[in-house]
Amino acid sequence: MSIPFEIGQAFARDLDMQDELKAFRDEFVIADPDLIYLDGNSLGRLPKATVSLLRQLVESEWGEGLIRGWNLGWWDAPRRIGEKIATLIGAKPHEVLVADSTSVNLFKLAVAALRFQGKRDRVVSDVFNFPSDLYVLQGAISTLGGRHELVLMQSKDSIHMEDSEFERAVNDRTALVELSHVTFKSGFLYDMERVTGFAHEAGALVIWDLCHSVGALPVRLNACGADMAIGCTYKYLNAGPGAPAFLFVREDLQEKLGSPVWGWLGQENPFGFDLRYSPAPGINRFLAGSSPILSMTAVEPAVELVQRAGTDRIRAKSVRLTEYMIFLYDRFLSSRGFVLGSPRDERRRGSQVSIRHADAFRIIRAMIEDMKVIPDFRAPDNIRLGLTPLYISFSEVCEAVQRIAHIIDHNVHERFTHERPTVT
Amino acid sequence: MSIPFEIGQAFARDLDMQDELKAFRDEFVIADPDLIYLDGNSLGRLPKATVSLLRQLVESEWGEGLIRGWNLGWWDAPRRIGEKIATLIGAKPHEVLVADSTSVNLFKLAVAALRFQGKRDRVVSDVFNFPSDLYVLQGAISTLGGRHELVLMQSKDSIHMEDSEFERAVNDRTALVELSHVTFKSGFLYDMERVTGFAHEAGALVIWDLCHSVGALPVRLNACGADMAIGCTYKYLNAGPGAPAFLFVREDLQEKLGSPVWGWLGQENPFGFDLRYSPAPGINRFLAGSSPILSMTAVEPAVELVQRAGTDRIRAKSVRLTEYMIFLYDRFLSSRGFVLGSPRDERRRGSQVSIRHADAFRIIRAMIEDMKVIPDFRAPDNIRLGLTPLYISFSEVCEAVQRIAHIIDHNVHERFTHERPTVT
Repeated sequence: MSIPFEIGQAFARDLDMQDELKAFRDEFVIADPDLIYLDGNSLGRLPKATVSLLRQLVESEWGEGLIRGWNLGWWDAPRRIGEKIATLIGAKPHEVLVADSTSVNLFKLAVAALRFQGKRDRVVSDVFNFPSDLYVLQGAISTLGGRHELVLMQSKDSIHMEDSEFERAVNDRTALVELSHVTFKSGFLYDMERVTGFAHEAGALVIWDLCHSVGALPVRLNACGADMAIGCTYKYLNAGPGAPAFLFVREDLQEKLGSPVWGWLGQENPFGFDLRYSPAPGINRFLAGSSPILSMTAVEPAVELVQRAGTDRIRAKSVRLTEYMIFLYDRFLSSRGFVLGSPRDERRRGSQVSIRHADAFRIIRAMIEDMKVIPDFRAPDNIRLGLTPLYISFSEVCEAVQRIAHIIDHNVHERFTHERPTVT
Repeated sequence: MSIPFEIGQAFARDLDMQDELKAFRDEFVIADPDLIYLDGNSLGRLPKATVSLLRQLVESEWGEGLIRGWNLGWWDAPRRIGEKIATLIGAKPHEVLVADSTSVNLFKLAVAALRFQGKRDRVVSDVFNFPSDLYVLQGAISTLGGRHELVLMQSKDSIHMEDSEFERAVNDRTALVELSHVTFKSGFLYDMERVTGFAHEAGALVIWDLCHSVGALPVRLNACGADMAIGCTYKYLNAGPGAPAFLFVREDLQEKLGSPVWGWLGQENPFGFDLRYSPAPGINRFLAGSSPILSMTAVEPAVELVQRAGTDRIRAKSVRLTEYMIFLYDRFLSSRGFVLGSPRDERRRGSQVSIRHADAFRIIRAMIEDMKVIPDFRAPDNIRLGLTPLYISFSEVCEAVQRIAHIIDHNVHERFTHERPTVT
């Protein structure tokens, strides 16, 4: 099978020519131009600026500066980089911090929210949420004595959630709603404004998990009246493996909430060495211990790239990339045993296209090991094709579909076993 | 003033000649050989091996390997590096994890311990503890509903704690004792075996904070019957600014305790994506979110250096370094307005010598800015001289005292103001 030139190579080349963001691909290390990397929704590529900045950090700031490095920008990094992330998520500069992991940040905010909400005893989430979020919520509930109940909204299908589910789930017993803004399996995108509105009407607070939306589309936290958010920086923000996460707390809520982890960096005066904790004013109270500076440093140049590209332009390209992928799926993959696992409505879709196949695991092995296409896999049948607008071209989308079809047509995947690796 | 040759330069040179660890200095980046770095108890120097390993990590593993890096050792890092740290602290390989920050790890273990201890309602620590530990304990108590009381042991003096204080403080209401093994201000070293014994007799659990002992002296957790421990890796382990911390839980306690932060890496099967949390068997249940891999990677070569040197040899040199420093203090600094702020008994002293002075802040500014000696400062009057055996020579100890005496004799510090920087 060959994708016809006019809807394949030629069409893709035209789209690439018109791509306002095409120059951004040169900002990343592309070691093998023939490798199609569709896993930026799991770990983003390495920005070139990060390479030189990390060398300088290690060899000059740490190696020569030693302890003095803390005065060269390390100390302020959680706030300084938080201010930059704020511009990507529609928040005020003093509403965002970079710190800890997504799990730890969610724990801090969930415990704070549940304690603030007093007698309300329900936490609402959905079955699409990243399971780790659900685990953290369960742990927060257990830590607070087990008096809260976690209610998981179900859906009629495996891709999207109806707004009407909220009417059933959110009421005057709801303390907190916690959802993935873009869900990890299907890439379903919640209407943040509407959900926040539902929740606020019922008197509930909302924590948005932005892991799969930050850097891939404009997030408008303030415009939606959002309360709290968390997110990682290693997916569409390209900050490197396990890079520190961020958290957002709306200005007027900051002084009302308290982190359960009273570390010294969240203390009013960290170098006063008082024996009793008093929370710092504002967002700083959600800091705990020292930041992992090597990993933290890699966040900044990566976020700056996304700032330069602009989230509106990123979203516009993202929509075109996923539309094109779905267009090719309809013509060349649905007939080869694949089922679309992402919303067709672009307004409800993040920057990924999930395609499902009964033999998905062997297919992704063939993609990675024989065909130089790296997707993401979620058991049992979900091949997630992450389309990061900053470095994915339309020609790559076309070529990826071509290679996937080739695997099926030539049974390339049949040489692989069903044995599962630790991580894919 | 000149320190007489026979107890100064010549004596120090002899000690350096006999130093079994002297070759280890070449394992570190020493950008300016004339700079005497006595702040390794705050941020250790950069190992040369770390420089090349980080380049490889960033440029090859992340830049080229992309998501596949997780199968190149990133995934196993918390356990693999934990096993290496276990050899330094007298623990079994499966009892130690590298994860999160010291504050977050202490929170996880303190909450776990207090919940396990049921009705016991007291937490015992001391006024010498690093305040952040006290804050985290206060936060854990608050999160669990405020029914526990934090009891802080006082001391007759500012340097050491009498064992007899424990008899007063620890009883059948004590759930948990949490102490810095080596205290941060004076470098006082607790008798871990004895304290653990006292606590166990009363039915209490103990968490040891090893921040100022790991890498500076042999810690024998198993031999002391220790329950739990936490520690950082950026001081005597030289793992870099804000590098991930570690935690230890004794084998037989692991299945009895549960972390409050139920992240997916602490889940039984992280890639099963079950909606309900079940804790992983063993120590892994104390993992939360993804590790900051850049910072994590720097821990391993640094720990390997300490392993190669051996903690017994490190301790032997450390004792000689601090003894020599105190010898010179007695002759040349006590007459210049300094007061010794560390124990004279080597069995009760870590790897630092604190000297206190009414004008300490201006003196450390003169040391750093004019005299190329970097100490550590703790308000209001404490100059901490950290003596890291892997890279500090006896000649540097002698030269540092010479330069400090010079500051006093020539009023070098008088040109500085009392204005305090953010971090020193």
